[in-house]
Amino acid sequence: MHLNQSLMRAVALWPEREAIADGQKKMNYEELGKRVAALIAALSEAGVKKGDVIACMTLNCHEYLELYYAASFMAAVLNPLNYRLKTEEIRAILKDSDAKIFVGHTEFGQQIKAVFDSGAPTVKQILWLGAGTPPALSTDSQKYEPFLMSKWGASLPEPVATSDDLAQLYYTSGTTGTAKGVMLTQMNAAFNALGAVSELNIRDSDVWLHVAPMFHLVDAWAIWAITWAGGKHVFLPQFKPTEVMQAIEREHVTMTALVPTMLNTLLEAHNVWEYTYNSLRFILTAGSPVAPELVRQVAEVFRCDYAQFYGMTETSPFLTISLPMDGHKNLPEHKLLELKAKTGRPFIGVDVRVVDPDGNEVRRNSEDVGEIIARGPNVTKGYWNKPEITADTIKDGWIYTGDLAVVDNDGYLNIVDRKKDMIITGGENVYSTEVEHVLYEHPAVFECAIFGIPDEKWGESIKAVIVRHGKIEATEDDIIDFVKQRLAHYKAPKSVEFVDELPKTGSGKIFKKALRDKYWENLVKKV
Amino acid sequence: MHLNQSLMRAVALWPEREAIADGQKKMNYEELGKRVAALIAALSEAGVKKGDVIACMTLNCHEYLELYYAASFMAAVLNPLNYRLKTEEIRAILKDSDAKIFVGHTEFGQQIKAVFDSGAPTVKQILWLGAGTPPALSTDSQKYEPFLMSKWGASLPEPVATSDDLAQLYYTSGTTGTAKGVMLTQMNAAFNALGAVSELNIRDSDVWLHVAPMFHLVDAWAIWAITWAGGKHVFLPQFKPTEVMQAIEREHVTMTALVPTMLNTLLEAHNVWEYTYNSLRFILTAGSPVAPELVRQVAEVFRCDYAQFYGMTETSPFLTISLPMDGHKNLPEHKLLELKAKTGRPFIGVDVRVVDPDGNEVRRNSEDVGEIIARGPNVTKGYWNKPEITADTIKDGWIYTGDLAVVDNDGYLNIVDRKKDMIITGGENVYSTEVEHVLYEHPAVFECAIFGIPDEKWGESIKAVIVRHGKIEATEDDIIDFVKQRLAHYKAPKSVEFVDELPKTGSGKIFKKALRDKYWENLVKKV
Repeated sequence: MHLNQSLMRAVALWPEREAIADGQKKMNYEELGKRVAALIAALSEAGVKKGDVIACMTLNCHEYLELYYAASFMAAVLNPLNYRLKTEEIRAILKDSDAKIFVGHTEFGQQIKAVFDSGAPTVKQILWLGAGTPPALSTDSQKYEPFLMSKWGASLPEPVATSDDLAQLYYTSGTTGTAKGVMLTQMNAAFNALGAVSELNIRDSDVWLHVAPMFHLVDAWAIWAITWAGGKHVFLPQFKPTEVMQAIEREHVTMTALVPTMLNTLLEAHNVWEYTYNSLRFILTAGSPVAPELVRQVAEVFRCDYAQFYGMTETSPFLTISLPMDGHKNLPEHKLLELKAKTGRPFIGVDVRVVDPDGNEVRRNSEDVGEIIARGPNVTKGYWNKPEITADTIKDGWIYTGDLAVVDNDGYLNIVDRKKDMIITGGENVYSTEVEHVLYEHPAVFECAIFGIPDEKWGESIKAVIVRHGKIEATEDDIIDFVKQRLAHYKAPKSVEFVDELPKTGSGKIFKKALRDKYWENLVKKV
Repeated sequence: MHLNQSLMRAVALWPEREAIADGQKKMNYEELGKRVAALIAALSEAGVKKGDVIACMTLNCHEYLELYYAASFMAAVLNPLNYRLKTEEIRAILKDSDAKIFVGHTEFGQQIKAVFDSGAPTVKQILWLGAGTPPALSTDSQKYEPFLMSKWGASLPEPVATSDDLAQLYYTSGTTGTAKGVMLTQMNAAFNALGAVSELNIRDSDVWLHVAPMFHLVDAWAIWAITWAGGKHVFLPQFKPTEVMQAIEREHVTMTALVPTMLNTLLEAHNVWEYTYNSLRFILTAGSPVAPELVRQVAEVFRCDYAQFYGMTETSPFLTISLPMDGHKNLPEHKLLELKAKTGRPFIGVDVRVVDPDGNEVRRNSEDVGEIIARGPNVTKGYWNKPEITADTIKDGWIYTGDLAVVDNDGYLNIVDRKKDMIITGGENVYSTEVEHVLYEHPAVFECAIFGIPDEKWGESIKAVIVRHGKIEATEDDIIDFVKQRLAHYKAPKSVEFVDELPKTGSGKIFKKALRDKYWENLVKKV
C-alpha cells in the first residue's frame, strides 16, 4: 500500500481532467504526472536516494504537491516545515532530520539565509520557489523550475516505496516544547487518504481548496485523497479571506478544510455575502472544538454541509469526524447542529476509545471524562530519534492523545479539554472548552482562551483572555456575569483580559501554553 | 490493518442497529458481537489457535458470517468450501489445508459422511449447522448452536491478527483442474472491503442480500464491507428467484451481488413484476461479461443502478468496476448502458494494466488486446503449498489473470476472452465473448457458450452451445445467420448445439472447459 498509486491512477483514468489550478497556472493530470516524473529524475540525478530527507519551507503551491509525490515515489522522505518557525528552530529540525535537500520559497529568503548562514551542514542543495530573487548562499542553490525542466520528458518510474517506508516527517511544535519529528509511513498516510475518500465520498467532480498550510495535516492529507478520486486541486498561497471567497466562486470549489479561526474570519468578513458558493459541498474544520452556533452560520452563509474532524499529526491525521450517520437523518435541526459541532465518531478503520486512568472505557453518558486513545494503520511508528518519547506515547499499539473527552449514547466523542489544559479550582475539575463554548455565545467574543493561573486559595483560578469583535463593547464584569448565568459559578472566570490577538500554533490552534506559562514561571502546576 | 475492526466498530457505533435478518431470526450488532465473542471462546476452548484452519461447508446463513469473524479475530484461517464439490475433491482440500475443525450443514449430511467415512484425519471436531439430524460419524461432533451458547457471556477479545496473517483459504476449482488454495491475508481482504465502501459509497442505511454463495468472493467480501459501514445483512440459503424478490421487498434490500445467470433468471421470471424493489440502489454482477441489453433490463425491471465488477479470488476480489465517473454524467443513455456493461475501470488503490506479451501497455483504442495484470494490497501472497504455481502467476508483484481485454479511451477495460478460450480459426483470432454478446441479442438465447473445436482445415472451428428460452424456437441456421448479419463471417459458429443446461463452476460461471474438453481429448490445443 503506497501513496503513489493515487497519482498513477489519476494519470491513467483522468489524464485530461484539470488537476491543478494555482493562480493563472492550470494543468491536467497528464501534465502533472509529467512534471512529477521530471522532478523525480532531477532529484535522482542530484543524488536523492531512498530514505533521504527533503525539507520544504514554502507557501501553498502546486510545487508543494509535486514535492510530496516525488519524494513518495522515490521512497524519500518529505519534511514539510512550518514557515512561522524561528531560525534556531528550523536549524534544529534540519539537524535532527538530516535533510539533504532544502526547498525554500523566496518569500522567506531572509529567514532561510539566516538558517544557512548560521550553518545547516547536512543540506547539499537548495531549490528555490517563488518569483523573488533568492539570497546569495554558500550552499549549492538553483531555481526549482529549471531544475525540474532539465529532465522534461522523463516517465513516471515504478514506485519503489513499500507500506512500511517512511513517507513524511512532520515536526510538531508549539504545545509541547521541543519539536519532535513524527514519522508517517506510506501505509499511515495512504490508509488515512483512502478512509477520507470513503468517509467524505470524494469523487472526480470534487474540487479541493488548499488554503490551510500544506506543511500541516489539516490540509496535506487531501493531496492524496483528492488525487485518488480524480478531483481537482486549487491552491492559495495563504489565507486571505477575500481570496478564499473568490477562489471558491471562480474554481467551483466543493470542499476545503480550515482551522476554526479561518472560518470565523470568513463568517465575520464584511464582504462574505458578495460571492457565490453554490459549488460547495462541505467545509471541514479541524484543530479545535467549535460551537454549534458556528455550524449554523456555515449553513446560513455558505449553504453547504459542515463537519469537524479531529486527529493529530501522529495519526495521519483522522481519528474522528462529526458527520451524521444515515440513522440520524430524522433528527431535528438543532440536534443535527449539536452533533456536527461535536468532535465526532471514530473514522473508518480506526479504533478510538475514551478510557479512564485504569484503561477502562468510560460510560456513554456525555458526562464521564476520559482520555482519547487510538490504534490503527494510520498511527505513526513513533518520533524520529526519540524512542523514549515514542514509548511514553504509544503503548501496546495505542497512542495516548492527551485529549480528554466524553462520549454520547451514539458513540460520538466530544473533547472537553487537553489533559494539560484542565483546570482544578477548589478541588473541582473545570474543562476549559466548556467555558470557552459559553463565551463564544457572547456577541462581543471573537476568540477566547480559558486557562488556570496560580491561586493560593483555590490552587488554580480561571482566567479568560478574549479578542473582541471590532465594534462590540463588553466589560470584564459583563463576561463573568454572562458565564455565571449559564454555568455553575465555580466555572466562571475570576479575571478577564482583552487583547488584540491570541498566540497560535503552526496549525492555527490557539497556543494556550504561551498564555499560561508566564503565570506559572518557577511554579509547578499541581495537576 | 485487520478485518476485525469492522465488527468492533459496528458494535461500538451501531449496537442497536439491525445487523442480521436470516429468515425469522433478527439480531442487532450488539447481539452479533456477543455471538461472535461466544463462538471465539468456544473455539478457543476446543483448541483452535492462531493459524489453525476451520473448514466450512454450508448454505448461506448468519452463522457463516459469525465463523468468518471468529476465525479472523483468532487469526485462525477460514476455509470456505464449495458444497457442489465431490467427495474426493473435498477430501483433497481438507488434506491440503490441514483443517482442524469442520463446520457442516445437515443439508449436506450424506456428502459430509462420505468424506469422513473415507477419512479426513486432520479434522478433530465437526460442528453441525441446520435443522436436520446429522449423520453418525466417528469424528467428535456436536451442534453449532449449543457449542456457541456454552460460552454465552464472553466478551470480544482484542484481535490478535496482524496485516500479514492469513485470514482465509479459498480453493479455486473448475476452470483449471486441481484445486489450489488461494491465501488471503487480513490486509488483502480488509483493503478490498474498505475500497468497496468507498467505491459503492456504502452507508449505515444499506441492506445487503447475501444470496450468491458465501463460500465465494462474489458475495463474501460484503461481510466485511457492509459491517464496516454499519449496514444490515440479509441471508438467503441459496438462490431461488421468488425468495430473492420477496426478500428485497420485505427487508428493503439496497444492494446485492449476483452472477449473471441469477440476474437472467430473475429478469425472465414470470412473477418478477409482482414485487416492489424501490429500496434497491444497486445490483452488481460478477463472474462473466454481460450484454448492454441486460443492463437496460435491470433499469427497467428493478429501477436501480447496475455495475459489473471483475476480479479473482486471488485479488480479494475487486480489480475493476463498471461504475461511471462523474465526468460521464452527461453521456447519452445508450452510451451509459455500454459503459456499465464493460468490465470496468480499475478499483481504487489497485494497479491494473493490460499488457502485450512484451509487458507494454496496449493502446487505448478498444481494439488492441492484451492480458490483464494487477498489483495492490488486495493481491494474494500466493497458493497454499504451491510455490511453483505462485511463481508462475505472480511476477514482480504483478498477478497475471489469464484474461484478455481491450481498453477504451477513458481507461475502461473490456474483457474479450480468457486467454485459454480464445479461438484461432484460419489464422484469425476470435474472442468468444464478442460472439456470445451477439448471441445474447437473439430472442431465443437464454445462455450460451462459444468455443473452438478441432478442425483439420481451420485449426479450430467455432462451436456454439445454447440454452433456449422456454417457448422461443430457433434453428441452427437461424443462429448462424443471425451472427453473420452482425459480425465478420469467420466469427460465426460453424455448428450449434441446443442443450437444456450449461455446466457451471462454483461461482456460477459457465464452465467452458467441460464443454470443450470432450472434443480435445488426446489432442493438444495449438494456441
